[in-house]
Amino acid sequence: MYEQLYNRLLSEYAESQDALGVQGERLAKRLSKIAEIGLTADGGSDRIGFSEGEKRAKELVISWMEHAGMSVRSDEAGNVIARLEGSDPSLPPVISGSHVDSVPNGGHFDGPLGVLSSLEVVEAWATEGYTPKRAYEVVIFTDEEGSRFNSGLTGSRAMTGAVDLDQQRALRDASGDSFEEVLAAIQLNAQTFTKAKREFQLGSDYIELHIEQGKVLEERNLPVGVVSGIAGPRYWKMTFTGVAGHAGNTAMNQRQDALVAASQLVHSVASLPIRHSETAVATVGKLTVEPNGANVIPGKVTLVVDVRDITAPTRDVLFEEIKEVANTIAQEWNVSLECEETINVAPVPVSQETKDRLHSVIEAEGFTSIEIPSGAGHDAMLMGTQMSMAMIFVRSAKGISHHPDEWTTLADCVTGVKVLKRYVEQLQ
Amino acid sequence: MYEQLYNRLLSEYAESQDALGVQGERLAKRLSKIAEIGLTADGGSDRIGFSEGEKRAKELVISWMEHAGMSVRSDEAGNVIARLEGSDPSLPPVISGSHVDSVPNGGHFDGPLGVLSSLEVVEAWATEGYTPKRAYEVVIFTDEEGSRFNSGLTGSRAMTGAVDLDQQRALRDASGDSFEEVLAAIQLNAQTFTKAKREFQLGSDYIELHIEQGKVLEERNLPVGVVSGIAGPRYWKMTFTGVAGHAGNTAMNQRQDALVAASQLVHSVASLPIRHSETAVATVGKLTVEPNGANVIPGKVTLVVDVRDITAPTRDVLFEEIKEVANTIAQEWNVSLECEETINVAPVPVSQETKDRLHSVIEAEGFTSIEIPSGAGHDAMLMGTQMSMAMIFVRSAKGISHHPDEWTTLADCVTGVKVLKRYVEQLQ
Repeated sequence: MYEQLYNRLLSEYAESQDALGVQGERLAKRLSKIAEIGLTADGGSDRIGFSEGEKRAKELVISWMEHAGMSVRSDEAGNVIARLEGSDPSLPPVISGSHVDSVPNGGHFDGPLGVLSSLEVVEAWATEGYTPKRAYEVVIFTDEEGSRFNSGLTGSRAMTGAVDLDQQRALRDASGDSFEEVLAAIQLNAQTFTKAKREFQLGSDYIELHIEQGKVLEERNLPVGVVSGIAGPRYWKMTFTGVAGHAGNTAMNQRQDALVAASQLVHSVASLPIRHSETAVATVGKLTVEPNGANVIPGKVTLVVDVRDITAPTRDVLFEEIKEVANTIAQEWNVSLECEETINVAPVPVSQETKDRLHSVIEAEGFTSIEIPSGAGHDAMLMGTQMSMAMIFVRSAKGISHHPDEWTTLADCVTGVKVLKRYVEQLQ
Repeated sequence: MYEQLYNRLLSEYAESQDALGVQGERLAKRLSKIAEIGLTADGGSDRIGFSEGEKRAKELVISWMEHAGMSVRSDEAGNVIARLEGSDPSLPPVISGSHVDSVPNGGHFDGPLGVLSSLEVVEAWATEGYTPKRAYEVVIFTDEEGSRFNSGLTGSRAMTGAVDLDQQRALRDASGDSFEEVLAAIQLNAQTFTKAKREFQLGSDYIELHIEQGKVLEERNLPVGVVSGIAGPRYWKMTFTGVAGHAGNTAMNQRQDALVAASQLVHSVASLPIRHSETAVATVGKLTVEPNGANVIPGKVTLVVDVRDITAPTRDVLFEEIKEVANTIAQEWNVSLECEETINVAPVPVSQETKDRLHSVIEAEGFTSIEIPSGAGHDAMLMGTQMSMAMIFVRSAKGISHHPDEWTTLADCVTGVKVLKRYVEQLQ
C-alpha cells in the first residue's frame, strides 16, 4: 500500500462522512493499493496499457470483486467484466466502469477512482442487504490512455466492435515491439483480440464516474457535476509554406514569412469558438518552425488545430471557419497553405432524460447540480454508441491530471460514489 | 577547377565586357578553382572556418597574390595580408578584402568574390602599368561565417582586437573539439591568437565587395549598389509561461495559453519596424512550444526576436517598443513573460562622404546608384570600428545565399571590380 496517499486521503476525512454503506476508508485503502503498483519516483503512477503493472492492478481489483460476490471474467481484449446478478435476470444490465492503466507518470485517481467507485456500490449494497432488479456489471477497460501505442480507448473499442484488427496489429510501441508481441507478454492473443466485441441487450445502461480534469467544479465549489456530453475532436494539420531568408537582408515588405501567417491564425483561433457555442474549444498545441534559426525568416510552419464540441453541428461549423480564416491569412501574407483533416471523432451527447435523472440525484444529496462538457475522451464515449450513457465528474484539485499532483479529496470521492449508487438504484 | 561553374560563368559573358584591365575569364577561373576545394554533392561549397579546406583556399589565393607581385604574410589568427607598396610609403593604406570560408553547404560567391575582386584590382593595375600612391592591401579574413563554433567574424575580430581569448578558448565545435585543438590541426596557436590585433595607421580606408544576399538590386535591375550601413542586431530572448492543460477540458476563458500570447507578439512584430525606419527589420525566426502536444494547451513558448537597423537610435526605439508590446500582450492573456537581451552589436553606418564617392563612381560606369542597408554582418563591420569603411553590393540572383544556388553573373562581378578599382583610385 502507498502509505503516503492513504494517510493524506484519511487526514482530510472523518469516518462520520461515511453514508449509505459507502466506506471512505475502504476506498482509500484500495486506491492506495493500486497506487503501489507502478509507483514512480515522483509519487505518481506508471501503469501504461498492456503492461505487467496494468495486469497486476486488474488482478488486484478482481480479487476484491470476487470477495464482493461478483462473478468475474476477462474478455479477449483483457477487459475485466464482473457481474452481480439482479433479481430479474431477464432485464438488461446496468454497466459501470473505468480503467486502471495510466500515462507514464500520471496520478492515482484518473481511472482507478471510477473502477473502485463502481465496486464500492456493490460493497454498499451488501452492507444494506440490497439486491438490484437489473444485473449490475463493473468493467475494467484495457488501455484507456493509449500510452503504449499512441492510441487509446482500446478495451472499450474492442468491446464495442470499433477495432480494426489489421490496423491494430500494425502498431509498434516505443521499444519497437509489435502489438502481438506486447500482448503475448501478458498472455493475450492478438489474433482473437476483436472477439471481445459484445452484443449488448437492448435497454442496457452505462455510467462512468471520473475526475473532472478541469477546474469548473473547484471554481463553483461543488463536489460533483453532470457531464453534458463528450466532445469529439477534429484535427486540422496545417502547413504554411513561405520563403526562408536572411533576417537581416530581407526588407519587411519583401518577406513571405510562414510564422507571421501561422501566428495570426493561432491568435484568431483563440477567439473563434465562442461565436459558435459555449462548449466549443479550439487549440493549437503543436507548432513547429523550420528552419528555426534566430536569424532566418521561417520558411515553413506546421501546426495542428484541435477543435472540439459536444455537438457535431456547432463543432463542424467552427472547424470549417478555421480553415477559411487560415486561407485568408495565407493569402494576406503571400504564403501557401495546405490543410489536412487528420482526426474526426463523433461527439457523444448525454440524453436530457439521463442528465435530468443525475441532476435530481445530486440535488437530493444537497448540492447544486451543474453540467460540464467533457473535452477528453472516455470509455463512456464508446459505450455510448451502444446504449444510453451517463458520466459523473468529481472535483479535481486545480484541474490537474495526468500528473503525480492529481488530487481529489476522499470526501468528494465518497460523494461521487453515493451519487453513482443512487443513480443506479434509480434505474431499477 | 570546378568546370561547371567556370563554363556557366563564361557562357553568360563576352570577352568584350573586359575593361580597365579587369579580365572576366581570370576571375571566373579563380572562382572555379576555389570552388573545387570543398565542393559538395549539391555543387556547393563546404569550407567552414578553421578547416583544412579554408586553409587550402587561402594558400591558393596566396600563390596568386605572390604571382601578382604582392608581399604576403599571415597573422596569428590565420588572416592573410597581401601588400602592394604605394609610391608614397608614408601614406596610410587602402585595405580591401573578404573571406574564403563558407557555411557547410554554401555558394561560391559569398566571400571568394570579395577576395578575388580585391586581387583583380592589382592585376588590372599591372596591365595598365598603374602604381597607387597609397599602399594597397588585400586581406583574407579567417572564419567570417562562424560555422565551426557558432560565432563568426573571427578573423576580423582578432585583427581589430575584439576577441576575448578566454571566451574563445572555451569554444568547442560540433565534434567536441576545443578551439585549441581545432587551431593546432591547421598549425595555428590558440595562445597567441589575439596577437593578430593590429594598430592601423590613421587615415586608413577599408572597402569590401560582397554579393547582396537580397533581391533589391535584382528588382531594380542594377548590377551594383552602395551599402548604406551594416545593421547591428539586438536579440530579445522571450519566454512566455502560461499553464499547460488538456485542450478538450479547459474552457476558452479559463486558459493561460502561452502560444496564443506569443503568436500575437509574432504577428505584431511584423508591422512595427516600418513605424520607426525604412531600413529597420524585426524577425521571429526561432520559436519553440512546450510540451508541443496536439491536445495540450501550450504551457511555455520560447522565442527570439532579431531586431536590426543601420542606425542605433531607430533600432533601439523599436527594440524597446517590442518589449512593451510583449508585456501588454502577456498581461492580456494572463501569462508571464521574461525578456532577456542576448545579443547587442552596434550598427556601423557608412559616412556620407564615402557613399557619395561610391555613387559618383557607379554613376560614372553608367548606372543609377542606390543605397541598400546590409542586414547581415560582414568583416567590414569590425574594420569600420577602426577606419572609414565602404561596401559595394553586387547583384545576387533571387537574393539566394548560403546555398549552392547562390549566383552572380560574371558581367556583374566584373562591373563590381571596376567600381572597386575606380573607388580605390579615387582615394589616392
